[in-house]
Amino acid sequence: MRQKKLPEIVASEVVAQSRLFTVEGLHLKFTNGVERQYERMKGSSRGAVMIIPMLDADTMLLISEYSAGTHRYELGFPKGLIDPGETPEQAANRELMEEVGYGANKLVKLKEVTLAPGYFNAQMTILLAFDLFEQSLEGDEPEPLEVIPWSLSRSDELLDNPEFSESRSVAGLLLAQKWFATHG
Amino acid sequence: MRQKKLPEIVASEVVAQSRLFTVEGLHLKFTNGVERQYERMKGSSRGAVMIIPMLDADTMLLISEYSAGTHRYELGFPKGLIDPGETPEQAANRELMEEVGYGANKLVKLKEVTLAPGYFNAQMTILLAFDLFEQSLEGDEPEPLEVIPWSLSRSDELLDNPEFSESRSVAGLLLAQKWFATHG
Repeated sequence: MRQKKLPEIVASEVVAQSRLFTVEGLHLKFTNGVERQYERMKGSSRGAVMIIPMLDADTMLLISEYSAGTHRYELGFPKGLIDPGETPEQAANRELMEEVGYGANKLVKLKEVTLAPGYFNAQMTILLAFDLFEQSLEGDEPEPLEVIPWSLSRSDELLDNPEFSESRSVAGLLLAQKWFATHG
Repeated sequence: MRQKKLPEIVASEVVAQSRLFTVEGLHLKFTNGVERQYERMKGSSRGAVMIIPMLDADTMLLISEYSAGTHRYELGFPKGLIDPGETPEQAANRELMEEVGYGANKLVKLKEVTLAPGYFNAQMTILLAFDLFEQSLEGDEPEPLEVIPWSLSRSDELLDNPEFSESRSVAGLLLAQKWFATHG
């Protein structure tokens, strides 16, 4: 819709690095001549998936997982990084098998979302999964994930639950509701 | 709903640091005895706000802003960190004045969301802003933000726009739609 000219990356360098994170410092020059120092996370750019698994027409499967960032258990949908060579659909099926013990015969893409794009280059595909079949794969979780069936008709209660806070899970739930309202 | 016992943080140390980011390494011991090394971002814990400004009953105000993480312009709602001593409502009004040139006489909290809570402790309050009045505050943007009025009735078109990808903006739009569906 707009053809706005991007600022020029005059210089970039790694300014901090750990096992998981690499911080890149950017010297930017905007088209109006203003120059600024920015920082961003160098991502794997592999992309990720989040899956809303429908056990039946009204039952979603949630997981409760320890989240180190907030140091609490969080309710959300299964998710994970796309492995090299995988399509989003293949990654979705693998993550489903690892995290909830099901595969899906049908996957519908709802939307591609990003996460704080000012700092990260993290693309996530949100998918609805139907026609599930029992199949497990060994995951790398430190403890078994708790799988929690939740009725779509109780979505408002889920939105009011402070443990269900992750913006991508919130977006996923509302996109799923919207999808069911038109395709239901 | 659950009273799951949290893993113990056996040790923690800063493993990388830049001007904006501090990475903390955690040695965790889960209740089943499994020990793991995690990493997380030490956040400011100050919290942030995102505001959906309603210019009238059907017109939202979006901004288009350069995002270094994805190196492109992104469409989304005004947002920013809460300054020390501010309430979320005060921060919302300040950000509105800085980013879109309006204040709001009425603010409604929609939800508190987090961002990838596995790695971050970033809380954001999403608010709807009504009854706007023209008032500007100097922001610290390197270039003027483009403000784009968008009709609520064209929400589906916005959701289909790949520039509107930020999961918190997507959640905010859908929460606003939901709010209007019940509060008219």
